[in-house]
Amino acid sequence: MLPNINSISDNRFSIEDLQYLVKDELKSTDLIIDQSLASDIPLIETIAKHIIYAGGKRIRPLLTLIAAKTFNPQTPPEAFYLATAVEFIHTATLLHDDVVDDSDLRRGLITAHKIWGNSASILVGDYLFARAFELMVKTNNTTILQILSQTSAKIAAGEVLQLMHSHSFDVSEKVALSIIGAKTAELFAAACQTGALAGSARPEQAQALYEYGYALGMVFQITDDILDYTSALNRGKNLGDDFGEGKITLPLIYAYQNANQADKDLFVQVFSELSNAPAHFSTILNLIEQNNGFKAAYATATQFAEKALKNLCFINSPLIPSLENLIHFCLGREA
Amino acid sequence: MLPNINSISDNRFSIEDLQYLVKDELKSTDLIIDQSLASDIPLIETIAKHIIYAGGKRIRPLLTLIAAKTFNPQTPPEAFYLATAVEFIHTATLLHDDVVDDSDLRRGLITAHKIWGNSASILVGDYLFARAFELMVKTNNTTILQILSQTSAKIAAGEVLQLMHSHSFDVSEKVALSIIGAKTAELFAAACQTGALAGSARPEQAQALYEYGYALGMVFQITDDILDYTSALNRGKNLGDDFGEGKITLPLIYAYQNANQADKDLFVQVFSELSNAPAHFSTILNLIEQNNGFKAAYATATQFAEKALKNLCFINSPLIPSLENLIHFCLGREA
Repeated sequence: MLPNINSISDNRFSIEDLQYLVKDELKSTDLIIDQSLASDIPLIETIAKHIIYAGGKRIRPLLTLIAAKTFNPQTPPEAFYLATAVEFIHTATLLHDDVVDDSDLRRGLITAHKIWGNSASILVGDYLFARAFELMVKTNNTTILQILSQTSAKIAAGEVLQLMHSHSFDVSEKVALSIIGAKTAELFAAACQTGALAGSARPEQAQALYEYGYALGMVFQITDDILDYTSALNRGKNLGDDFGEGKITLPLIYAYQNANQADKDLFVQVFSELSNAPAHFSTILNLIEQNNGFKAAYATATQFAEKALKNLCFINSPLIPSLENLIHFCLGREA
Repeated sequence: MLPNINSISDNRFSIEDLQYLVKDELKSTDLIIDQSLASDIPLIETIAKHIIYAGGKRIRPLLTLIAAKTFNPQTPPEAFYLATAVEFIHTATLLHDDVVDDSDLRRGLITAHKIWGNSASILVGDYLFARAFELMVKTNNTTILQILSQTSAKIAAGEVLQLMHSHSFDVSEKVALSIIGAKTAELFAAACQTGALAGSARPEQAQALYEYGYALGMVFQITDDILDYTSALNRGKNLGDDFGEGKITLPLIYAYQNANQADKDLFVQVFSELSNAPAHFSTILNLIEQNNGFKAAYATATQFAEKALKNLCFINSPLIPSLENLIHFCLGREA
């Protein structure tokens, strides 16, 4: 019998436990981040560090390092380059996303484009993309390069797809899941898969880590989309950012599908006004809640959590319980 | 004695002659461009093709193909992937540049960001960058991957450097040349060098092609910066774009250095108003002309032309005269 997501629950687990497992590797990665950002052009370093050192969870490089260590207790140098590359790809997409979404806050700080302008954010994002590829090339592993370059194209395609469907309720669950998949899950998956390959995993083991990472990314992003509406805590972003930007996320899609005609009309009306006024926000919050949007989104996240768990079944490593706990952490996080 | 740039002048030479030399290879490259842009997301294809098929000179992929053929009459498939990758990197930077500069026209067409918005241009640019890396990885050649990923980082860094110095007259000739080098010459150089490597050139031959390409790129961009002010022909861009965007290019820098205090004050005054009004434009045009800005910029371009020529001296191939003619074409172009 497969383990159930609830049976592996460990409420004492935190992301810091995972960081502790690879604390030396994270230090080495930080060194490579710093070396890679050292530039004759101070503005590049300033903007990149503003976002990289703003206290993000570093979950993607963490996945790469843990995945490598799952198969090889001696982390090879390639894994540090990969962890840095994955963080740089993620940072580049954040810099561009904040311009695209015109966001004000990120990780509790004013966004780079609000401080240094759109142009600087676009160009420093491009710089980080290019540096990420430079770092990957150092691994001298064509399979890894194929995976990460394809992943970058999928991320950008997913962002374009999201842009095309913003402000429209006609997006199906299938399209919504493929946007989340491309935007978030693919990089989680590639971080795990390439880390595993750097740790000399066999191809089918690396594939299992890809599936684990993809499903984990889905859990992470769906939970994020729920929290964007429900979290009363300070998440370092504005509450209701997605609503303010007209993003049609999973809780909204499910609620709209479940809603009667009067509620459907109300959804469309409030979103067409696109006002961030608190009254509008609480109307939408109630509409989603009443039409079981959060419940349905959480159920989908739980399905992905089970899938992530299933892919760890046949891997034998002392680090597997930590990867299991991470699923639970992503599903249950409150901020 | 080294040949002089004027001695190799062939006034009948046109870019079409060069295209004819690799006409089959250009067709194969176009096929790969089309295949690589085929996407489930029509907006990506539409925007990318809007700019790629707007009648650009394709000078960068042309350089890659000619460089490969210089050393190997049978162009290897890797060269087509590289030519496409180089064109995609260039296209991605154009899409982002037009957002950064808020340009209205490119290659005689309304710019993508004016039609589809800044967000779509940023994200499709990211997509093309990623696709470029995917194509490069297909060459399975780590040296080529190193060169092109470093080049991409240099381009982005050059753009940031240019952004930091926009609207300021305190930029030295050295900084101005390094901006042109990073923004334009590095990709010309990498296109030549990686093409040569794909054509099995020896490392020192590939290095000579790098130097040739770099110097050619300098000639190309300095001429471009002169033409932005002087060309009365329709260049598919707005005349005086650089002036309107407050870009301090080489003709301006030299003129400012040569100017007396009254003219210096006038330069600063007109640029601080940054008005695209015809009267302002003709004031600047006259100021540059009177202070020998165009003449000095042309002299610098000629020095780079000689340098480009010198690097072809020791290569024995029937294609060398065409590469020589290309230098002359870039130096003498009027549109």
